[in-house]
Amino acid sequence: MQRGFDVSEYRARVVAAQTGMARAGVGALLVMTEPEVRYFTGFLTRFWESPSRPWFLVVPAAGDPVAVIPSIGAALMGQSWISDIRTWSAPDPDDDGVSLLADTLREIGGPVGVPSGPETVLRMPLTDFERVKAQSGLTFCSDHGIMADLRAMKSETEIAKIRHACGIAGRAFDRVGDIAQPGVPLSRVFRNFQRLLLEEGADWVPYLAGGAGPYGYADVISPATDAPLQSGDVLMLDTGAVWDGYFCDYDRNFAIGSVDPVCDAAHRRVLEATQAGLEAARAGALACDVFAAMAGMVEGGETAGRLGHGLGMQLTEGLSLTAKDRTVLCPGMVITLEPGIEVRPGQWIVHEENIVIREKGAEKLSPWTTDLVRI
Amino acid sequence: MQRGFDVSEYRARVVAAQTGMARAGVGALLVMTEPEVRYFTGFLTRFWESPSRPWFLVVPAAGDPVAVIPSIGAALMGQSWISDIRTWSAPDPDDDGVSLLADTLREIGGPVGVPSGPETVLRMPLTDFERVKAQSGLTFCSDHGIMADLRAMKSETEIAKIRHACGIAGRAFDRVGDIAQPGVPLSRVFRNFQRLLLEEGADWVPYLAGGAGPYGYADVISPATDAPLQSGDVLMLDTGAVWDGYFCDYDRNFAIGSVDPVCDAAHRRVLEATQAGLEAARAGALACDVFAAMAGMVEGGETAGRLGHGLGMQLTEGLSLTAKDRTVLCPGMVITLEPGIEVRPGQWIVHEENIVIREKGAEKLSPWTTDLVRI
Repeated sequence: MQRGFDVSEYRARVVAAQTGMARAGVGALLVMTEPEVRYFTGFLTRFWESPSRPWFLVVPAAGDPVAVIPSIGAALMGQSWISDIRTWSAPDPDDDGVSLLADTLREIGGPVGVPSGPETVLRMPLTDFERVKAQSGLTFCSDHGIMADLRAMKSETEIAKIRHACGIAGRAFDRVGDIAQPGVPLSRVFRNFQRLLLEEGADWVPYLAGGAGPYGYADVISPATDAPLQSGDVLMLDTGAVWDGYFCDYDRNFAIGSVDPVCDAAHRRVLEATQAGLEAARAGALACDVFAAMAGMVEGGETAGRLGHGLGMQLTEGLSLTAKDRTVLCPGMVITLEPGIEVRPGQWIVHEENIVIREKGAEKLSPWTTDLVRI
Repeated sequence: MQRGFDVSEYRARVVAAQTGMARAGVGALLVMTEPEVRYFTGFLTRFWESPSRPWFLVVPAAGDPVAVIPSIGAALMGQSWISDIRTWSAPDPDDDGVSLLADTLREIGGPVGVPSGPETVLRMPLTDFERVKAQSGLTFCSDHGIMADLRAMKSETEIAKIRHACGIAGRAFDRVGDIAQPGVPLSRVFRNFQRLLLEEGADWVPYLAGGAGPYGYADVISPATDAPLQSGDVLMLDTGAVWDGYFCDYDRNFAIGSVDPVCDAAHRRVLEATQAGLEAARAGALACDVFAAMAGMVEGGETAGRLGHGLGMQLTEGLSLTAKDRTVLCPGMVITLEPGIEVRPGQWIVHEENIVIREKGAEKLSPWTTDLVRI
């Protein structure tokens, strides 16, 4: 499968941003996080793991974006379609890109829109942000949700990458029987499952969570302990594996030997709720409608505070399937369906699948499961 | 090896923070990033990969910290030593922890110190940050570098975890001959090297970079291409593998078959520069002194903007080995030494090792290499 995107797709994204900027009266869009910079440039590196250096991309009201980045990134950014790349030697304790960014913004003109709503972070020191504002002399404002709105609608190429990541995880899930038996510590299962994901084609495995217990697990975010799997446990593995910068995010539950029949019943119920979510996830429906379709079947089922969420360049992004989220589902949105049932107090079984909203109904991206798999 | 820390260590960290807060006149320290929250609580989860929810920890002027977190984290935080855990159901589009945090801060009292200097990020929406400031009615200020100063000095337990991570990577590097031969795509080498790291005991592999070419590589941050290794290439793999939340960060270079003798000479030179860095890295020396000791041997050698950096709960943290960084080296600081040589224009060989500063000289944490390994 082809990596990256045609330059035409990046250009279309920039034009779409500029359309939103014109509507909102924003003169420059300033972004600084990994997915936002990558969205416009294709700049893909795991180096963002290092917090030491800020990175900036400025989208002007018209014309191509300008990258204002540490010199360590010049070679890689030079391979992208971006031609205006301005660098400084970072980290610089006196002026870590502040003047270069302020000059660039002044040249482009404001007001400067900065993503400021849900899920955004300011990936630069607050002190330096204040200096950039002062030195540029421009007005700063929210980006009016332009970035979030753009990223919520996936292109067919983006959807294909997520489907590819889902396929990789599906093949790894099919092999869990090889690595999970009674007596194996959960930490070793985690380690080996990451290995399976890599063998099946994942570029890397940013996220793996899970749990195991006779009636499920206490939450879906804990790291693995060294406690050995026991016959009668329900084992859950939930992964965000990445291919070419796009995530899958779904889980599978496994019965280690013979489990209590209430677990089978709970698992059937979360599958039914997932199916109800799939059927409710029609273009034009609201996020809260999909929530309601599932919540009614699992009595709330909100160990995670929501029953699903958007998905793409990040493990979770965009809408939340909650009672309060009134986002309208549109074709091209990729979401997860993630209902859970509390089998016993504090012990949960959670199921998750990935879908994309289409003009007519939703399309499955993850290989839909049908049963609690026996190991 | 024992995971986690004794509660006494967390308490000592809190007391040390409170000492700094008293000196700086800070009434509450507000932190919200993964390493900062974990530093005081031990809260360890890969769930931070999800950007959807903010997490907060407030350290008061006296007494134990208060966690203000999404309910999805209650079970896991409940296993830590923190007893005052306040939760809300997140994500909440109307009030995503804003009121709960503002109330908590008002109860504790200000001024509220927020990490605002180098390497910090504001891991909450700017809009919500402004709301918290307004609703709490308190004064907000920088944390005066308290967090960064605390984290720079590692305890023996922290150092042992980093040494353990270094050992894991060392055993994986010893097996690279099994996965890297002429004709193997670099992307497959990356995938398999992550697998080796997991097999040797890494919990996960947040960072892997590298490159291959007849005279080295263009940078040290690019992802792998599908181009096959060729006889005569120098292959470099640079990993940040994690054990119990602590990173190693070092690389190895490998000669695929017979390489140009200038590569051997360059590799010897970067090893000598690393050795010079080790000898210069004495308690009381400045970061720029260690830089100078290495830079003189590699003619600058700053493809990365620096010749090394601090290391710990993050791949890079704390000081930078640059001409400008005047940080005083103190016992307990863990740093990398990372000199590079430009063998041909745009083609580099970079070497990296990890050390800890001791009262007398520095101690090696990574298994020091001696030669360009032949494959």
